[in-house]
Amino acid sequence: MLVQKYKDMLSGKSVIRQLSEFAAQRGQEIGYENVFDYSLGNPSVPAPEEFTEVMIRMLKEREPRELHGYSPNPGIAHVRDAVAASLEKRFGIPYRREHIFMASGAAGALAHAFRLVTEPGDEILTFAPFFPEYHPYVDLTGAVLKVVPPDCEAFQINFNRFEEMLTPKVMAVLVNTPNNPSGVVYSEETLQRLGEILREKSAEYGHTIYLISDEPYREIVFDGAEAPCVSRFYNNTIMCYSFSKSLSLPGERIGYVAVHPECDGAEYMVPMCVQISRGTGHNCPPSIIQLAVAQVLDLTSDTSVYETNRSLLYNELTDLGFTCVKPGGTFYIFPRALEEDANVFCKKALKYDLVLVPGDTFGAPGFFRMAYCIDTEKVERSLPALRRFVEEEYKGRD
Amino acid sequence: MLVQKYKDMLSGKSVIRQLSEFAAQRGQEIGYENVFDYSLGNPSVPAPEEFTEVMIRMLKEREPRELHGYSPNPGIAHVRDAVAASLEKRFGIPYRREHIFMASGAAGALAHAFRLVTEPGDEILTFAPFFPEYHPYVDLTGAVLKVVPPDCEAFQINFNRFEEMLTPKVMAVLVNTPNNPSGVVYSEETLQRLGEILREKSAEYGHTIYLISDEPYREIVFDGAEAPCVSRFYNNTIMCYSFSKSLSLPGERIGYVAVHPECDGAEYMVPMCVQISRGTGHNCPPSIIQLAVAQVLDLTSDTSVYETNRSLLYNELTDLGFTCVKPGGTFYIFPRALEEDANVFCKKALKYDLVLVPGDTFGAPGFFRMAYCIDTEKVERSLPALRRFVEEEYKGRD
Repeated sequence: MLVQKYKDMLSGKSVIRQLSEFAAQRGQEIGYENVFDYSLGNPSVPAPEEFTEVMIRMLKEREPRELHGYSPNPGIAHVRDAVAASLEKRFGIPYRREHIFMASGAAGALAHAFRLVTEPGDEILTFAPFFPEYHPYVDLTGAVLKVVPPDCEAFQINFNRFEEMLTPKVMAVLVNTPNNPSGVVYSEETLQRLGEILREKSAEYGHTIYLISDEPYREIVFDGAEAPCVSRFYNNTIMCYSFSKSLSLPGERIGYVAVHPECDGAEYMVPMCVQISRGTGHNCPPSIIQLAVAQVLDLTSDTSVYETNRSLLYNELTDLGFTCVKPGGTFYIFPRALEEDANVFCKKALKYDLVLVPGDTFGAPGFFRMAYCIDTEKVERSLPALRRFVEEEYKGRD
Repeated sequence: MLVQKYKDMLSGKSVIRQLSEFAAQRGQEIGYENVFDYSLGNPSVPAPEEFTEVMIRMLKEREPRELHGYSPNPGIAHVRDAVAASLEKRFGIPYRREHIFMASGAAGALAHAFRLVTEPGDEILTFAPFFPEYHPYVDLTGAVLKVVPPDCEAFQINFNRFEEMLTPKVMAVLVNTPNNPSGVVYSEETLQRLGEILREKSAEYGHTIYLISDEPYREIVFDGAEAPCVSRFYNNTIMCYSFSKSLSLPGERIGYVAVHPECDGAEYMVPMCVQISRGTGHNCPPSIIQLAVAQVLDLTSDTSVYETNRSLLYNELTDLGFTCVKPGGTFYIFPRALEEDANVFCKKALKYDLVLVPGDTFGAPGFFRMAYCIDTEKVERSLPALRRFVEEEYKGRD
């Protein structure tokens, strides 16, 4: 007797994955270099050379038993120390080893964060546009994900709808800034107001509403800016980080949970993550990868290509008449489609070998996402196709 | 509001871990080389040199984006092909890529297997003596683990009690051979009879009872023997494998689920594992480790040291009058204690700096476990301490 819940999920197919498969197929016909595949959020720049060097050095010099041995359940102690010290230096919050739980990427970190603070039936709120995997991530814990409709002007937070939806059933709020798919970085004002509302409602309802902050794009911010640190605006924040994007290591499954030191119950949370991991079967992220990232914590891949691509696309899109919030980070842009149904719009784009993802899947119908983690040369070649698409399909409209 | 279920687990402390901590502390007083620490099942031999060479070669030669990129959800296709081919060659069962799901060690594999075939409230049976982590592994999925009392003569299966406990509520049976903690390898006769009973009861109850086979010790078998392959005796077997022990890579979290090709619902099971992993947050095991193990699938660490240690200990223990089933594999031995309460026995042993684990935690009171994955030189030095312990504490008794 196979479990029906999981069997039923087999019929649902991710729109992003379908488009990515289309791109791969089309690539076999006309050469993948001629498909302007903006579907997938895979880092396009290599891991820093220092990471490779550190890995090779450890493999050559260290005792294999030490290198590949069991990691303690919350992660290797000196790795947790290094992460805590780096966070403290960077954000001025006194993280210590006991606040850090090493996890298998952001997905692993989130799986533990959700289970820390929600029982089956509890609600978690998140804000559209949002990463669609949040649905299975949350739903399969037994908690219920509810999505606050977007602020379509700036893709900050629609506070009116948020306050309506922030009922006593809500045990956690999930934010993702810099944001996939909008590319927007939440402003200090947004985070300040979010913190105030959460403090007020926690007091009113008599229970802590935790803020779960999913931050895989934290290091990919443009125009010399820094992303405001979510944890600085609300103590009851559980930070979920991944090195997938910043170090271009998505396959190595490495990240962490960082519990704010002033968080309610901070002293229990990492030990509770250890207990949770016995049920999720994850145990720890790979030991050699833990050891390696600890030595390159403050490095990133050369992410400047994403900023170059952002500017090329933003300029061309606005020039073509698209309405579009300028991305402050990530490698995504999320313009409004040129007709109401973004699915129809994206389908038409395929004729021009432009693979764009309709916003419906991100909770923002009428928009579309372009993941510009591709070579700049390809972005440049895609611009004439984009122009031709708009002129041929939408010329003379409105 | 932290989730009480996990908070409550914090007070329970693993006996094995407590003893291991005692050993470490005592080591600080008298030098760890003088503590005969038989508490933990950590491989004591290094990973094969070929593994290190393969890792270095890939890091030097391959494009980092290819090496560290996202693995497809069920694992890297050619790695799954290689695992399937190796299993087919070895066991004569026609595994193919679609039957293999790469997982984060045996713990990860089991977490997916349990969720495939049990709903909350369903029962899973296992056989004492058993690995105590099975309790949180199963309980945290919502299923219920029930433990069939041991066959204390041979540590095969107590079939009488098994048949009594195999009610219609049982959806899966979990076996671990070669066994932790007994070191015993289930015989062909045992597996044959187990398969017959499961076929019979599945027919009688009108639902498939799956067999989940936890096989991390499969490659550590003594006296030139091979462990009979569980999957050959019952088609509805879900094999859960880990490279932790065979390649001495416990920290790298690499293993797989192999679904028997003739299993009921075989075509759904790996895709369902992919769905399950969205909830457990595990995604895939690290990509570079997947790529590396695929190149050393048919190698193992030099595990002959475990056989040497087994013989040294078995001979000494029987010579000292212990009743003991001779281990056919693993790096454990599980003798009967010299008094009824193995906790008292093991406590007395600590005075001789012998760290032994009482059998109660494995569901077999009155026995104790020694994990002899330590240097042979230390095993040899421990024998006089063992003799002194027995003579001083139990001389002249019965």
